[in-house]
Amino acid sequence: MEYPSKLIENAVEEIAKLPGIGKKTALRLALHLLKQEKVEVHNLSEALIRLRENTRYCDQCFNISDAPTCTICNSTKRDRSVICVVEDTRDVMAIENTGQYFGLYHVLGGIIAPIEGIGPSDLTIEPLVERIFDKEEKVSEVILALPATMEGDTTAFYLSKKLKDSGVKITSIARGVPVGGELEYTDEITLGRSIMNRQQL
Amino acid sequence: MEYPSKLIENAVEEIAKLPGIGKKTALRLALHLLKQEKVEVHNLSEALIRLRENTRYCDQCFNISDAPTCTICNSTKRDRSVICVVEDTRDVMAIENTGQYFGLYHVLGGIIAPIEGIGPSDLTIEPLVERIFDKEEKVSEVILALPATMEGDTTAFYLSKKLKDSGVKITSIARGVPVGGELEYTDEITLGRSIMNRQQL
Repeated sequence: MEYPSKLIENAVEEIAKLPGIGKKTALRLALHLLKQEKVEVHNLSEALIRLRENTRYCDQCFNISDAPTCTICNSTKRDRSVICVVEDTRDVMAIENTGQYFGLYHVLGGIIAPIEGIGPSDLTIEPLVERIFDKEEKVSEVILALPATMEGDTTAFYLSKKLKDSGVKITSIARGVPVGGELEYTDEITLGRSIMNRQQL
Repeated sequence: MEYPSKLIENAVEEIAKLPGIGKKTALRLALHLLKQEKVEVHNLSEALIRLRENTRYCDQCFNISDAPTCTICNSTKRDRSVICVVEDTRDVMAIENTGQYFGLYHVLGGIIAPIEGIGPSDLTIEPLVERIFDKEEKVSEVILALPATMEGDTTAFYLSKKLKDSGVKITSIARGVPVGGELEYTDEITLGRSIMNRQQL
């Protein structure tokens, strides 16, 4: 595709580096920005730079945080004996939205994905192990809330091996037929697991 | 939705102002940028600011251009007697991609859309009228290549009225069943038009 100017070509190439955005969408976004007030484009640009330059991570759970320790880790209302291990911030937000969890979190910053070159040392697994083995933290349960994919299962397996000797109970969130889901449209692995892990009423 | 930090909330809000990007996608993009090198985020930000600050428009056809006059208007190989009127740069790129058109363009910068508050004075209609009525330009045909929507038809109608007294031939691109399209899946208006505008073989 030949672009009418170097500026737009450059902008399209940069925007198209974002995940899930192709060159056509990038061009549409670039043309949209061209029609906006200059201050709008500056606001967007500065928000991105400030995000990247100034974002800090909680020194306990590694969630994104404005302060050295995040509001959840600082809260006196949370149950400090339970730690829920998640892939990233979005999972913390999703679980917080349920209003069903009152423990702490640990954000891994990704999951083990050898194909993408992400190994255990790229994640916050070492600090998690320290947290769990630290007797002063008095952790009694670790809930693994990782994606139900091969990478998620690999990470869960790796973590459960690492944490085995801590004496702490290790659990995983339930896999099963989603609420509102029809049995006939549920894949056989999920359906199989939901039968295996059936619960007494 | 409660965000873990003000920085990410601000970034999500700015990204979600882009057309077709909701808050969930914006959060995904923000978290992606957090994982990139700082230089990558700076490159993106600077490309957007440079695009908005430095983009110029061709003083003849109003297409995006690096120079005061664009490469198409400057070319000696183009047929200067035909002007194709389009909504924006993407249409120029699409028509150039066909390799079937060798005339000049005129980019309106939008189409008449009263609901969105876009009237004729927001578009480059005045300069187009001047180009067509200017006897020195020796224009013999104006091709309207506008979208087949109500707004596109309104704009085409407005332009054809404005240009009526110029003595220049005014045409519109053909509407019909797309190449490779099945008759049974073509909407009745398109099919009706394609019968009305049938061509002798």
